[in-house]
Amino acid sequence: MKIEFWFDFASTYSYPCAMRIEDLAQKNNIEVVWRPFLLGPIFNKQGWSDSPFNIYRVKGEYMWNDLQRICNDLDLPLKRPDKFPQNGLLAARIAVMFANEPWMPRFIKSVFAANFEHNEDISSPAVLSDCLAFIGENPERIVSDANNQIAKDLLRRHTDEALTRGIFGAPSFMVDGELFWGNDRLERAIQWANDNR
Amino acid sequence: MKIEFWFDFASTYSYPCAMRIEDLAQKNNIEVVWRPFLLGPIFNKQGWSDSPFNIYRVKGEYMWNDLQRICNDLDLPLKRPDKFPQNGLLAARIAVMFANEPWMPRFIKSVFAANFEHNEDISSPAVLSDCLAFIGENPERIVSDANNQIAKDLLRRHTDEALTRGIFGAPSFMVDGELFWGNDRLERAIQWANDNR
Repeated sequence: MKIEFWFDFASTYSYPCAMRIEDLAQKNNIEVVWRPFLLGPIFNKQGWSDSPFNIYRVKGEYMWNDLQRICNDLDLPLKRPDKFPQNGLLAARIAVMFANEPWMPRFIKSVFAANFEHNEDISSPAVLSDCLAFIGENPERIVSDANNQIAKDLLRRHTDEALTRGIFGAPSFMVDGELFWGNDRLERAIQWANDNR
Repeated sequence: MKIEFWFDFASTYSYPCAMRIEDLAQKNNIEVVWRPFLLGPIFNKQGWSDSPFNIYRVKGEYMWNDLQRICNDLDLPLKRPDKFPQNGLLAARIAVMFANEPWMPRFIKSVFAANFEHNEDISSPAVLSDCLAFIGENPERIVSDANNQIAKDLLRRHTDEALTRGIFGAPSFMVDGELFWGNDRLERAIQWANDNR
């Protein structure tokens, strides 16, 4: 059984989710399929040119407080980034281009930590190179490959697929065709997988 | 210890929450304070003249599916109402006017059932009278009192208070000054009450 984890590197609630999904899936003998995409084009279609957490400020302030509680509960560090949302384009291109590499989950978590733990600029090739070096991979080759047309097309197709499948936010999960939205639905998605083996 | 439960009779996720909050609170020795308000004026301030679930249709379709799963899990009936959102003005006026009556929780749950179980028009005095009669109260006197200026002013003050306290959606919970939003945060709000006794 598989759980598709659709995330955006800039998405706040994707952060705790990325940090906890592997453990939970493994305990239930479920495989995680990491599906990076871009929320920006999807938000654009909803008429938003910015994160709804910035457009609706009261909701945004609540979100940061709620996220802090969630991270406290998980013993996960959180530092509110100076810039929100960050530009996760290059990171997402790396993630789709090297999706099948065994180091990918470690890279993804390292980028989320750069964004939400260390307040680093994840649009910067230097920061992403540090993330890659940190997990023992070759930054130069990988960052260069992620700027290929193949990577760009792959990411566009991922985002189009998200739209087609009714995904409107992140994190989202797809289990056997069923859609779940939000870090708080992860347990229910795992249960769905268990119920539909 | 108290938990304030802020709800709108038209709010979908307020329905399962209204049906389960008493049991959960009682098990934890926490008092529920029922706080009806109107989401409409709060949505208006966010630039919405309709429920965001109607404005953002993909999100809306997901919501109905998600709500169905939640109700299934709780063994709670759900029939998608023909009209959404319904006009909960009169029901809310009754709820604020008679907030301290011991029958109020039963009335509230009866109105939610009328909306989301029986697909009835909860803006109708006849339907609300049926709800009142069902719980053994005098419909004529109560509906008449709820049309007083006092009831109207009370409800306006409730809604203003919600805005002032940073409430932007329903259901919301306030525990000792801390805000929680969403049926899925009820357990966390209860835990907050337990941790801050």
